[in-house]
Amino acid sequence: MPSVPQRYLHGPGPSPVPESVLAALALPCIGHMDPQFMRIMNEIREMLQQVFQTENEMTLPCSGTGSAGAEMLMDNLVEPGDICLIGINGVFGQRLTEKARRAGGTVHNLTAPWGQVFDQDEVVAAIDELKPNIVMLVHAETSTGALQPFDRLGDAVHRHGGLLLMDCVTSLGGLRVKIDQWGVDGAYSGTQKCLSCPPGLAPVTLSERAMHKLNHRKTTVNSWYLDLRLVGNYWTGIRAYHHTAPVNMNYALHEALRIILDEGLENRFARHQQAHESLKSELTNRGYTYASDPQNSLPMLNLVNVPTEIEDEAAIRRRLLEEHHLEIGSGLGDLAGKCWRIGLMGHGAREECVQRIVTALDAVVPQ
Amino acid sequence: MPSVPQRYLHGPGPSPVPESVLAALALPCIGHMDPQFMRIMNEIREMLQQVFQTENEMTLPCSGTGSAGAEMLMDNLVEPGDICLIGINGVFGQRLTEKARRAGGTVHNLTAPWGQVFDQDEVVAAIDELKPNIVMLVHAETSTGALQPFDRLGDAVHRHGGLLLMDCVTSLGGLRVKIDQWGVDGAYSGTQKCLSCPPGLAPVTLSERAMHKLNHRKTTVNSWYLDLRLVGNYWTGIRAYHHTAPVNMNYALHEALRIILDEGLENRFARHQQAHESLKSELTNRGYTYASDPQNSLPMLNLVNVPTEIEDEAAIRRRLLEEHHLEIGSGLGDLAGKCWRIGLMGHGAREECVQRIVTALDAVVPQ
Repeated sequence: MPSVPQRYLHGPGPSPVPESVLAALALPCIGHMDPQFMRIMNEIREMLQQVFQTENEMTLPCSGTGSAGAEMLMDNLVEPGDICLIGINGVFGQRLTEKARRAGGTVHNLTAPWGQVFDQDEVVAAIDELKPNIVMLVHAETSTGALQPFDRLGDAVHRHGGLLLMDCVTSLGGLRVKIDQWGVDGAYSGTQKCLSCPPGLAPVTLSERAMHKLNHRKTTVNSWYLDLRLVGNYWTGIRAYHHTAPVNMNYALHEALRIILDEGLENRFARHQQAHESLKSELTNRGYTYASDPQNSLPMLNLVNVPTEIEDEAAIRRRLLEEHHLEIGSGLGDLAGKCWRIGLMGHGAREECVQRIVTALDAVVPQ
Repeated sequence: MPSVPQRYLHGPGPSPVPESVLAALALPCIGHMDPQFMRIMNEIREMLQQVFQTENEMTLPCSGTGSAGAEMLMDNLVEPGDICLIGINGVFGQRLTEKARRAGGTVHNLTAPWGQVFDQDEVVAAIDELKPNIVMLVHAETSTGALQPFDRLGDAVHRHGGLLLMDCVTSLGGLRVKIDQWGVDGAYSGTQKCLSCPPGLAPVTLSERAMHKLNHRKTTVNSWYLDLRLVGNYWTGIRAYHHTAPVNMNYALHEALRIILDEGLENRFARHQQAHESLKSELTNRGYTYASDPQNSLPMLNLVNVPTEIEDEAAIRRRLLEEHHLEIGSGLGDLAGKCWRIGLMGHGAREECVQRIVTALDAVVPQ
């Protein structure tokens, strides 16, 4: 058995996993074509629809981590030569750009400073000018803690016949994600953020409009593993064998979704907000400052400036991990060395966790 | 918690999972950049090298099921226009052909009847004629139970500058797979067969020759998620973040590999052979016949003809599952309705399992 330490997970994910989710992981493995597994698959899809706030038939967990979910959207919905408008205001917009290019898309970028979000009016103006086939923004930029408003984009995208896609890896289960109401045609997430399940699956949902495009593609999808017409046959259609589903990971996701729906989405969102406000109050009282735009900050990912008197921030994180078993995240990309990313995700968005974080910081950061 | 029945898994995979592997799955989740997880990653890679019988540096578990491993090889090692020689003698050769095409390869197929294997001399002659960039055969055809000899192909492939690739999904951990000795340049497997770990990861190994080709590609790899120059940086190189590894699945693989190496590879192969011979003897004594070539049959996957007096073979499998909690596999593709696939894989290759299978068959199949 591998030797595994106990950690308090307050980086950018994975997040703390409830005991019952770990217990579900260890339930006996059964066959991926077993009628009882088909029932579990149906239950997962129904719960995912509730969490995504969608009626999309094509809602399922992709058999890979969040990045596989991103690639599933890009590979299925971008045809070679498609005009793609993709926002870059952090690491993940850059990655989506790269994935769209590999799928054959011609990418135009909107850019904003890291940590800032896009004004929806400006995005709409860009859409009206470019008339893109694909518009994609990151709802919750895990690299910067920025929260992108998404409620006024769908009509603009659709009036030019395009599809609106969303990265909601860090927001799903911790913040409102209203797929149908916002007119989002494709979205993907990961299990290891606010769903509080170990990493390994990527919830994905596609609208009827997106499925229409997929079903009328002129070219073959680059990926066979992620080809939604094949994967969809197994998850939602005739149950044709495609690949062997990660059975036990699906048990864990099932239990994680049950916990979320038992708590209630709105209660869960409020709990994330409360934990964030508590942490922010504790940190600002101690003189820490936030690096993210206060009008558009994620509650579940706190972007905190490394105090200027700290020369070696990595040493601080190492001491937090070794002496207090506490993981917080480093800055990514442009923010490396300058910021910390403190996660309060899912099961980790609790006052007990906030107190653990500030106690550990107090012990390790020189005053 | 999802309601999960207990099953005896004797289909084509997943296979029975030892209790300690399930317990490893449920160990606390830690971060994918945690130094302790890096240690576990190193331990997994070292154990995988032993099981693959290779010194390949680029040996790691791909973060998806077996089919993702196949796609990882194809996407990284096939460049557009590459001449690919791929054997088809069952479902998986067909799938590899499809994946090679999506990666841009020009595919030439060798074909053999389902259940038969390729004569190595004939493969070598085809290689000398075609001088392919890629040669790929399935070592253990899960759809037919055929075992492809692989020991005399490497030189022929290499003298024309090509790469020899292998699907060893069903053989790894149950049969000799000698990557270095046979000159195999790329191979992939799945965790849910003779490794007796739940599905979710695909062990992959690439030779220096394969890495040289990858490092000198003229075109970008189709997939970002499976791009081995990026994945490799995380697993074997500078530890740069790529995607969030499926942490708990890697714990399970770690424990499954430990069990294999504790038993010893040769002991494990002998155990698979013994279980196979016992099952074959029990079944032939009862009048069942094997559909696979006796000279080239897999011990871990027994291709048995459905007795002619059975009109509805699916009903028999359903009764085995419902009344005896026993899963056996249907025939795939050309063999659907005609054959059963009875797996004796990993933890399931034991006399106790053989007796359970024949007892259940005796109870359900009319004599």
